[in-house]
Amino acid sequence: MIVTVTLNPALDLTYTVDALVPHGTHRVTTVAERAGGKGLNVARVLHAAGEPVLATGLLGGGTGARVAALLEQDGLAASFAAIAGETRRTVAVADTEDATGFWEPGPVVSAVEWETFVKHYTGLLAGARVVTLCGSLPPGLPADAYATLIRLAAATGARTILDTSGDALRHGLAAGPDVAKPNADELAALIHGEQAGARSLVTSRGAEGLRAVTPDGTWHAVPPQRLSGNPTGAGDACVAALARGLRDGTAWPALLADAVALSAAAVVAPVAGAVDQDTYRRTRPGVIVTEEH
Amino acid sequence: MIVTVTLNPALDLTYTVDALVPHGTHRVTTVAERAGGKGLNVARVLHAAGEPVLATGLLGGGTGARVAALLEQDGLAASFAAIAGETRRTVAVADTEDATGFWEPGPVVSAVEWETFVKHYTGLLAGARVVTLCGSLPPGLPADAYATLIRLAAATGARTILDTSGDALRHGLAAGPDVAKPNADELAALIHGEQAGARSLVTSRGAEGLRAVTPDGTWHAVPPQRLSGNPTGAGDACVAALARGLRDGTAWPALLADAVALSAAAVVAPVAGAVDQDTYRRTRPGVIVTEEH
Repeated sequence: MIVTVTLNPALDLTYTVDALVPHGTHRVTTVAERAGGKGLNVARVLHAAGEPVLATGLLGGGTGARVAALLEQDGLAASFAAIAGETRRTVAVADTEDATGFWEPGPVVSAVEWETFVKHYTGLLAGARVVTLCGSLPPGLPADAYATLIRLAAATGARTILDTSGDALRHGLAAGPDVAKPNADELAALIHGEQAGARSLVTSRGAEGLRAVTPDGTWHAVPPQRLSGNPTGAGDACVAALARGLRDGTAWPALLADAVALSAAAVVAPVAGAVDQDTYRRTRPGVIVTEEH
Repeated sequence: MIVTVTLNPALDLTYTVDALVPHGTHRVTTVAERAGGKGLNVARVLHAAGEPVLATGLLGGGTGARVAALLEQDGLAASFAAIAGETRRTVAVADTEDATGFWEPGPVVSAVEWETFVKHYTGLLAGARVVTLCGSLPPGLPADAYATLIRLAAATGARTILDTSGDALRHGLAAGPDVAKPNADELAALIHGEQAGARSLVTSRGAEGLRAVTPDGTWHAVPPQRLSGNPTGAGDACVAALARGLRDGTAWPALLADAVALSAAAVVAPVAGAVDQDTYRRTRPGVIVTEEH
């Protein structure tokens, strides 16, 4: 079982309008609702690939109930802990040119709610082989929240993958996750190329694929061709591939080829958390993995 | 008892951002939530004035539950009928200059849900002296929905006030509401100054006050001074004053003076549905009502 942790999920709303006019009033033509958050995208990709996965994290209020209902519609197994605050919304206003985004900050989580979640999470670890920890922390959580969850997972023998940014990343790395997946900018800012506590570092180079620095070696994995589409969610598909590879003890070259192909399949899919299975199957054999010496 | 009908209520969200940048991504600084809809504003104004009022209409889904919870926080008596669709949201993005609005279209209401509401509403009419019918109709409702509700109210002896626009107004007028309150533009477009079925017509002229064409005469009511502030909600405060005046059999000149003063008190208040009681008390004696001959 892979457990995906999403501490700051969202109800993602996409509004379609004819044209965005600052300080105007817009009748929204269509409204699309989706359970959002990087960890939920990871869970959806794994579920679509037939991998057993359980989504956990924090949900609250009417928006939290809506997120839970949408996950159920998607057929995802979920076991979230309840908080008093309202789960945040994100609003993306799409016109004919591009989208304009509005991100709510997220609910403030109390110390007691965090303790309750940690207990809940500890209970879920019994069945977990791999735990993914993705996305931002909501207000109120300690900066070392991911470090706590990584240490608890390690104590039960579960492998951990950390994909976050800023303070949450810096503090999380200190707990020594099995894999960290910062983006290239974060990596440069944080650690100047050192591994800073993570056993392995996987960094995305966008269309140029992935680089992995691991105890077994350093590899580049490059897709056979550039794909155009929606890059949102490619990183989450990469984490999904890493999670099933860690679970199965897949060797790094094969694991990275899988991660590049699944990321490419996410770029082609219309929304984050979805993958195009044809693209995955076509891309997978053509990924070129080279070892750095 | 005054019953306020809101068939297309909303969860009104106000987002604060530093500056709106089309096609950019914005971290929202603060989120304010409010139960929205013209009929709910009418109910809030009446409740704040100590008048017995019951809010009814249609609510559905997580957003509907949130609207109900917010009404309860406001201390408003409410008895809504449930629908399967999600109550709509409105999003107002406020920057340092002005607000940019996004209005969801509202849930599609089925014929069965409408029938259920009509029965529910008929039950509420037993205690109703005045019924206000305000705002847009959600998708799926017949264009003559307000006409149906007006006829049912009239059959029990309750007085009716209609404040809507477009098709809903045109069809509603055919049922002969006691008072219709279209804005001046709607009025010109629809009926070229005739009363088109309503017993009395009250039109707002913004800062220049109200004009009423009634079986007892035609009056202008003008506030003693122009007030600056938030004009949203002034029309709803006017409907609230008309409702209590109709209930009490207040003569038109006094009723219009009350409506002008309560509208002025709404302009000064920061949000729709609120009124500034001091402004009301100060303005009320100075309203100038003149009869047209």
